[in-house]
Amino acid sequence: MIANTLRESDADFFVMYATSINANFYYATRFKTYDPLTYIFGIDGTEILLVPEMEKRRAERESRVKEIVSLEDIGFKEKLKEFNDAKKAYLEILVSLLKEGRCRRVLVPEELPSFISFELTKHFDVKIARNPFSKLRMVKSSSEIEKIRDTSRAILGVFRWLLENFRFERCEEVRRAIDTKLFAAGYLAENTICSTGKLSADPHEPGSGKIKDHLIIDIFPKSLEHGYHSDFTRTIFLRENNELEEMYSAVVDAQEEALRMIKDGIDAKDVHEKVKEVLSSQGYNTENGEGFIHSTGHGIGLEIHEEPRISNQSVILKKGMVVTVEPGLYYKDVGGVRVEDTVVVRKNGCEVLTTFEKFNRIY
Amino acid sequence: MIANTLRESDADFFVMYATSINANFYYATRFKTYDPLTYIFGIDGTEILLVPEMEKRRAERESRVKEIVSLEDIGFKEKLKEFNDAKKAYLEILVSLLKEGRCRRVLVPEELPSFISFELTKHFDVKIARNPFSKLRMVKSSSEIEKIRDTSRAILGVFRWLLENFRFERCEEVRRAIDTKLFAAGYLAENTICSTGKLSADPHEPGSGKIKDHLIIDIFPKSLEHGYHSDFTRTIFLRENNELEEMYSAVVDAQEEALRMIKDGIDAKDVHEKVKEVLSSQGYNTENGEGFIHSTGHGIGLEIHEEPRISNQSVILKKGMVVTVEPGLYYKDVGGVRVEDTVVVRKNGCEVLTTFEKFNRIY
Repeated sequence: MIANTLRESDADFFVMYATSINANFYYATRFKTYDPLTYIFGIDGTEILLVPEMEKRRAERESRVKEIVSLEDIGFKEKLKEFNDAKKAYLEILVSLLKEGRCRRVLVPEELPSFISFELTKHFDVKIARNPFSKLRMVKSSSEIEKIRDTSRAILGVFRWLLENFRFERCEEVRRAIDTKLFAAGYLAENTICSTGKLSADPHEPGSGKIKDHLIIDIFPKSLEHGYHSDFTRTIFLRENNELEEMYSAVVDAQEEALRMIKDGIDAKDVHEKVKEVLSSQGYNTENGEGFIHSTGHGIGLEIHEEPRISNQSVILKKGMVVTVEPGLYYKDVGGVRVEDTVVVRKNGCEVLTTFEKFNRIY
Repeated sequence: MIANTLRESDADFFVMYATSINANFYYATRFKTYDPLTYIFGIDGTEILLVPEMEKRRAERESRVKEIVSLEDIGFKEKLKEFNDAKKAYLEILVSLLKEGRCRRVLVPEELPSFISFELTKHFDVKIARNPFSKLRMVKSSSEIEKIRDTSRAILGVFRWLLENFRFERCEEVRRAIDTKLFAAGYLAENTICSTGKLSADPHEPGSGKIKDHLIIDIFPKSLEHGYHSDFTRTIFLRENNELEEMYSAVVDAQEEALRMIKDGIDAKDVHEKVKEVLSSQGYNTENGEGFIHSTGHGIGLEIHEEPRISNQSVILKKGMVVTVEPGLYYKDVGGVRVEDTVVVRKNGCEVLTTFEKFNRIY
């Protein structure tokens, strides 16, 4: 697949430089590193992970890349002595390595740090493109889907526990309870949204202070073991509030329409349009900074937000893609509501991985 | 300070594009975001954070940047309609914004994604440099030091608990116990090293399986509240092992020598040389792929590894810098040992933030 992209671009090599926080790097190498490393893929089938000597044995054990080359193997120390500048020495040996592979044109991903690409342009024809691994990652293998299902199950277990044991007064307590439960089970949720009152009109507001009539609870952990995320939101009601409950009922309607449409071959833009149509038919804004103010959903996997987006941009959904479907309504004088599930696109429909009652009242 | 860097580079604007995972971005903006945003600093004092409309109010509340501009404020929607390409539309409005500020030359950090810098070179003179915030971040304010002290205290509390309750058989159990305790207290340790046996000869091996004679326990969490890390390592012994205990005694000696040297004005390279000298005087390798195979330490703060490094590169330590001091010895047929503390460089010495007994035998 990367070889195809290279052929289409008439390029000889693809170069990434990142830590494993970068999902494309981790997907390509399956190697955990805090310090950035270079990954090289050649049209001749070469695939190299370039690591410091002290990481070589670990990389040989852990990474899926077959050829591990240490900086010291290719003269880093000598270059460092020559220049007394680690960055310059690093770029020098990287360029030499590509030149040895008779590189003429190199394909680099859009996110490649500029200090690398600027140096490459001095020696090669450089073509910049969307990272081909982002595209590869869009359609999940069945083993990846099982990992997202696993994280989904963990979320639902904690959410069920939360509803059954709801004796919280403040948003921070809810977040702490959810995150601690998840972590003990092996899942990391770092910024769980538990927002209430009027501030919940900001979709990414984490939430703080005394819980008012309702809570948006948006949980999106990753597994500490396999790294895959899932994403789930319910708006729960602690006290009767007709205005917010009606808004919530509308987003649930819109989500159900969207879920009915999603299947292999459909344009994500049409799904987004349908959500807007349902909300607007119930009298809510979908255009002007209030009401429905974000896209309908996003791909999910090693990253919490990845491709494809379900938005006003056209993109055909394919079976095996995993996306969120999360309409919301936000009015700054009222507050916000949102419902969200993570689903797998299937041939004739979609499979919800986070099946849970939509309406949860604790009063 | 950024203004000075701009003046020195004869540049009009500095541009960053990142998520808050990027420590420089978070340091500059104090705004948490999963999606990358643009931060602009102008020599005339302009400071802008460019956000999607739906993040505007949250950014106004949370970010330290005074001027929050939404994409929609500057015509993103219209450009998106024109091009039907979100990236192109984004670049177009970014370039317009800089042109409105009469930009001629723009300073970009080495890590700026190439798709931004390549576009900027079409319109402006682009100068690439080390991110000025990396330099700013090296010397910590007293409030930052208190945050690192806070995380240090959390580590020591959990480590003390661990030693008093050591009934573990496998590395994974030790890691899980440490990480869960820390998380419940509000600190995230995602990759705590608990390594044993011969594999511990790889410094970044996380560790797995049955605990043998010794354990390297390397704990480096960040606070979930304030984001600052601390870093601490002890090698503990579960059974007598003269060879490893002698190695450990040597790294403790080397660390003590290093700690005696560290103060305002000293060259980090000299500290590293002294560590090598102590280890080599006790008969250990410091050059050839075995023995002491990494640098002596690294800066720590919002990132686990940041500037300055204590290595073979010359850099003057200044008061207020916070660094680790972590000599280790690694032999693939024996295993590895390491001792590590996080310290603040002071005028006449250094202050250890992770004071704890070096020798811990549980037998």
